[in-house]
Amino acid sequence: MNFSSKLLENAVNEMSQLPGVGKRTALRLVLHLLKQPKEQTTYLAQALQNFRNEIKLCESCHNISDVDVCEICANPKRNEEIICVVEDIRDVMAIENTAQFKGLYHVLGGKISPIEGVGPHNLTIGSLVEKVKKGSIKEVILALSSTMEGDTTNFYIYTQLQDFDVNLSTIARGISVGGEIEYTDEVTLGRSIINRVPFENSLKNI
Amino acid sequence: MNFSSKLLENAVNEMSQLPGVGKRTALRLVLHLLKQPKEQTTYLAQALQNFRNEIKLCESCHNISDVDVCEICANPKRNEEIICVVEDIRDVMAIENTAQFKGLYHVLGGKISPIEGVGPHNLTIGSLVEKVKKGSIKEVILALSSTMEGDTTNFYIYTQLQDFDVNLSTIARGISVGGEIEYTDEVTLGRSIINRVPFENSLKNI
Repeated sequence: MNFSSKLLENAVNEMSQLPGVGKRTALRLVLHLLKQPKEQTTYLAQALQNFRNEIKLCESCHNISDVDVCEICANPKRNEEIICVVEDIRDVMAIENTAQFKGLYHVLGGKISPIEGVGPHNLTIGSLVEKVKKGSIKEVILALSSTMEGDTTNFYIYTQLQDFDVNLSTIARGISVGGEIEYTDEVTLGRSIINRVPFENSLKNI
Repeated sequence: MNFSSKLLENAVNEMSQLPGVGKRTALRLVLHLLKQPKEQTTYLAQALQNFRNEIKLCESCHNISDVDVCEICANPKRNEEIICVVEDIRDVMAIENTAQFKGLYHVLGGKISPIEGVGPHNLTIGSLVEKVKKGSIKEVILALSSTMEGDTTNFYIYTQLQDFDVNLSTIARGISVGGEIEYTDEVTLGRSIINRVPFENSLKNI
């Protein structure tokens, strides 16, 4: 692209470093800022910098947090005996939105993926094992995506925790609520038959 | 969305002010920055602020520019007798990329659109008329998109310039180079028949 302005070119180049943002999209976004009050750009720039420079990882669950120990870990009403293992903050937000889980989280920071060069030691699995070693945790729920990487990570955590006296579970796979049986893929449907639950359980709202 | 972090929430809210960026996309972009070196966020924030605070509009063509008079207007090799009227800098970039136009530009800053509350006085049409009034311009080429707003703007400019001794032209509409006749819509095909050109012209590379 032939920008006649260095200022514009810089802004577009930096913007197009973001994932899924090409040069054309970046140009559209940057030109949009020009039509808005200057304050909007100032607020955006400051919010991004403040976020990047001041955000911390919770010392206990490794979720991102404004303070040393995150809101969830610091909440005395949460059940400290159940730990839900997730990939990142988006999963924490999704599970929190269900309002069905009252335990604590453990954020891995990714999944084991040899292709992307992510091994067990790049994740917070060691810290999870340390937590379990202390003995007060009764259940670890694995809530990773149902992909090859997710299954690999699940299995690795299983090998690390199997010698401890802790229940290990994974979230249920099956047809979605409101889902029609005829349109469900066969792997999911097969799993939902194998992992069928007593009818009374389906009446419980946890 | 239930962010447990104020810093994250602010960053996502500001990011999602951009057009076409929803909360989920904003969250993905912001979390991406967290995995990159801090400098990347600093560069992005600075580039956006520098752009917004220091960018100018060229005094002559109203294109965005780092200096008072843009590179194109300041270039003595360009033909000052031909003015190409476009909507915004993206059109200037597109036409510059063809390397077929050696005149100057006049950037309107939009199109007349009563629905969006944009009238002739929100655009730089007055300044175009002033330029033409001086008498040294021989041709004004209208290069606006072929939409209702573009046609309205073209016609308004025509009414403003018809009393002056200046040739007014619009860029040609017709089937695209490489386009197949059977797949061309009938309005475009009809126009390309009405506005047929002598065969020798099609051999010229301008």
